[in-house]
Amino acid sequence: MQLKALFFDVFGTCVDWRNSIAREAAEFGSMHGIRNVDWFRFSDAWRGLYEPQMERVRSGERAWSKLDTLHLESLKIVLERFRIFDVGNEALDNLNRAWHRLDPWPDVVEGLTRLKTQYIVAPNSNGNISLIVNMAKRAGLPWDVILGAETARAYKPTPEAYLRNVELLGLAPEEVMMVAAHNGDLAAARVCDLRTCFVLRPQEHGPEQTSDLMAARNYDIEVRDFCDLAMRLDC
Amino acid sequence: MQLKALFFDVFGTCVDWRNSIAREAAEFGSMHGIRNVDWFRFSDAWRGLYEPQMERVRSGERAWSKLDTLHLESLKIVLERFRIFDVGNEALDNLNRAWHRLDPWPDVVEGLTRLKTQYIVAPNSNGNISLIVNMAKRAGLPWDVILGAETARAYKPTPEAYLRNVELLGLAPEEVMMVAAHNGDLAAARVCDLRTCFVLRPQEHGPEQTSDLMAARNYDIEVRDFCDLAMRLDC
Repeated sequence: MQLKALFFDVFGTCVDWRNSIAREAAEFGSMHGIRNVDWFRFSDAWRGLYEPQMERVRSGERAWSKLDTLHLESLKIVLERFRIFDVGNEALDNLNRAWHRLDPWPDVVEGLTRLKTQYIVAPNSNGNISLIVNMAKRAGLPWDVILGAETARAYKPTPEAYLRNVELLGLAPEEVMMVAAHNGDLAAARVCDLRTCFVLRPQEHGPEQTSDLMAARNYDIEVRDFCDLAMRLDC
Repeated sequence: MQLKALFFDVFGTCVDWRNSIAREAAEFGSMHGIRNVDWFRFSDAWRGLYEPQMERVRSGERAWSKLDTLHLESLKIVLERFRIFDVGNEALDNLNRAWHRLDPWPDVVEGLTRLKTQYIVAPNSNGNISLIVNMAKRAGLPWDVILGAETARAYKPTPEAYLRNVELLGLAPEEVMMVAAHNGDLAAARVCDLRTCFVLRPQEHGPEQTSDLMAARNYDIEVRDFCDLAMRLDC
């Protein structure tokens, strides 16, 4: 079966959330006269609540909620943990939307633009539609269609998060390749019969990163970055 | 409130379904040795079943079905009406996907490309996601995100078909403008507090067109084509 579409994980795979969130949080800090905060630790703490928050939705403990909502609840917890109080609603909302303003890794725009000439390129992210659209407009990510948790009404790595989005394109799983920097995402995609591509992003968690430094399984392709992927797929 | 996004009706407003379907159907006819069929009448008859089919979903008479499915059922009815029998499943499916291969009006790619520099440009069509994605890839329509009946799970002109898609972008209705060549679509959008733009497409139904030859109400903007709209919005 011919490959027709590429699904991309976004946070960590397409965009550098850690440096972007630290930058945005530091800006928030300087505007509010907040000193002596390590904004990288703040960024890591916020991201640290990502999986547990989604797990409450996946497990059925709470009803469907989009990622913007989960991010906002996590932000309130993290601000308290860092002893930052009395933040107004507008500032809170603006900081929460920092996730809409993440910078891409340097190879991403060129790689996607080349891949788009021969394949449908789509995010398959846990980020909600507005988050991914706003990010794409700012960063110049040339998606053909925005897919993800909100179109599937399921968070990865739930099988429905892959299969429903494949179905929305009218394709078979074998016609779609999941591209991600995370072994867990790819393992789940493979169970659903999608093809898989591991991209190395050794700095996602900063200089001390210990996870996802290599492909844990035999994927269909392993690449250094998106330009490497474009070359491997003859784009 | 500032305008942030433009929603476009697709069939008739962005693409010339009548000539495109007649062309595709004539090709199907010549491949199957079918003569003496007026393929424009065939095209009109197929499109004629569009509203009644969707109405069965809107009224709750049948469960949610995507437009590809409704188109296929209509196609079988129309083929019989034109006394075309014994069409194999593959040929049937290929002809049904003619709706994925409609040609844009000549101003559409340039207009959307200009509008995209300052606004989120999104289809808000009754076509399903795969139909609109495949059409965009073939025709070069530079959508930022694919919205429509399938993301809203409601067919226009049901209010949810507008409001749910506005909500998926995290916007207020007043921040979105519905662009369409059909007075009915714009009237429904206005009830939902979206802004409205009428585009004149006097040949959608061929040279004898009698409907939608002028704006039936006072819309926010009336334009000749998408380049005119881009100029009016300073793009």
